[in-house]
Amino acid sequence: MTTSAGRRGRRPGSPDTRAAILAAARQAFAAKGYAGASVRGIAGDAGVDSALVHHYFKTKDDLFLAALELPLDPRELLIPALAGGVDGAAERMLRVFLSVWDDPDLRLPLLSVVRSLVDPEGPRLMRDGFVPVVLGPVGVALGIDRPELRMPVVASQVFGLIIMRYVVALEPIASMSADDVVAIYAPTIQRYLTGPLP
Amino acid sequence: MTTSAGRRGRRPGSPDTRAAILAAARQAFAAKGYAGASVRGIAGDAGVDSALVHHYFKTKDDLFLAALELPLDPRELLIPALAGGVDGAAERMLRVFLSVWDDPDLRLPLLSVVRSLVDPEGPRLMRDGFVPVVLGPVGVALGIDRPELRMPVVASQVFGLIIMRYVVALEPIASMSADDVVAIYAPTIQRYLTGPLP
Repeated sequence: MTTSAGRRGRRPGSPDTRAAILAAARQAFAAKGYAGASVRGIAGDAGVDSALVHHYFKTKDDLFLAALELPLDPRELLIPALAGGVDGAAERMLRVFLSVWDDPDLRLPLLSVVRSLVDPEGPRLMRDGFVPVVLGPVGVALGIDRPELRMPVVASQVFGLIIMRYVVALEPIASMSADDVVAIYAPTIQRYLTGPLP
Repeated sequence: MTTSAGRRGRRPGSPDTRAAILAAARQAFAAKGYAGASVRGIAGDAGVDSALVHHYFKTKDDLFLAALELPLDPRELLIPALAGGVDGAAERMLRVFLSVWDDPDLRLPLLSVVRSLVDPEGPRLMRDGFVPVVLGPVGVALGIDRPELRMPVVASQVFGLIIMRYVVALEPIASMSADDVVAIYAPTIQRYLTGPLP
């Protein structure tokens, strides 16, 4: 993708420019968190104009998700699950997660994102970025009360399930059918979404 | 603790001997898993007699837990929670977990154990060792049916809670009172222990 002609200086529209912006974004988000990093600052670090950042990555949220190197955009992925409203949303969201994680092509890059979460800079990315960019909008789209409490609680069960099924590969969770995973975990997550919480 | 006089050869009863056994155990458990590593092999690697391993670490389980470098023995810790039987066991176990994790002196060493779980050799330790040595006996002590399914499922929620409250420090889970944590999570864990599962 990279041509040697593009190497000196950064020309708008070259693959180098996009890569330089992404590298600067990763550094900035890791060092300053999602809230602390600015598009203007990232543009400056990359030696380009802010407008060019917006040309490649429409919003700061898009830039953040690109910096996380997720193999897909969790916001688009969840749209069908959210469209049906809050009734049964837990099961539909779980089935989306399972379809993605059970895909061998996607699992490896997802695993590296999960591993990075327990790195020293990982928790900061999760707190500062993943919550406002991903979890928050999901709660709002579902129209649940107290999304700022419910969505992190949902995340605590989904994340624990992911760790046991895909990272630790603990049996019988690792080899269980998607239907069994749903039978066990959907009632928990549905309660976290809509049940009485303190 | 180590004297230079103890450095050459390994004398029974010296702190060096215990440290050498532990180092050999850590390597063996990481390389071969809990099931694959033997006390005899570890003794050989440490250049001591098997009897000396049993002198310092009564059983293979004890040696495994010492190799994990847990700041306390989860088996002893859970005894009072298990003594009351399965009714309300989820709340009692959760309160034990919270009292340990909320102790600033214990949290740091516990965090390093959690981080090591997502290291390449961590999952193997969890699968091969943590389950038979810790989770299994807890299920048996509670007298629940299908402990081999229920205990890993319990672990998936407890682990997710630990990650969000202590590693990622995601609000509002991170600053929530122990009572609120219990109100949210005890019903989940009690259902995993005694409710209908597929």
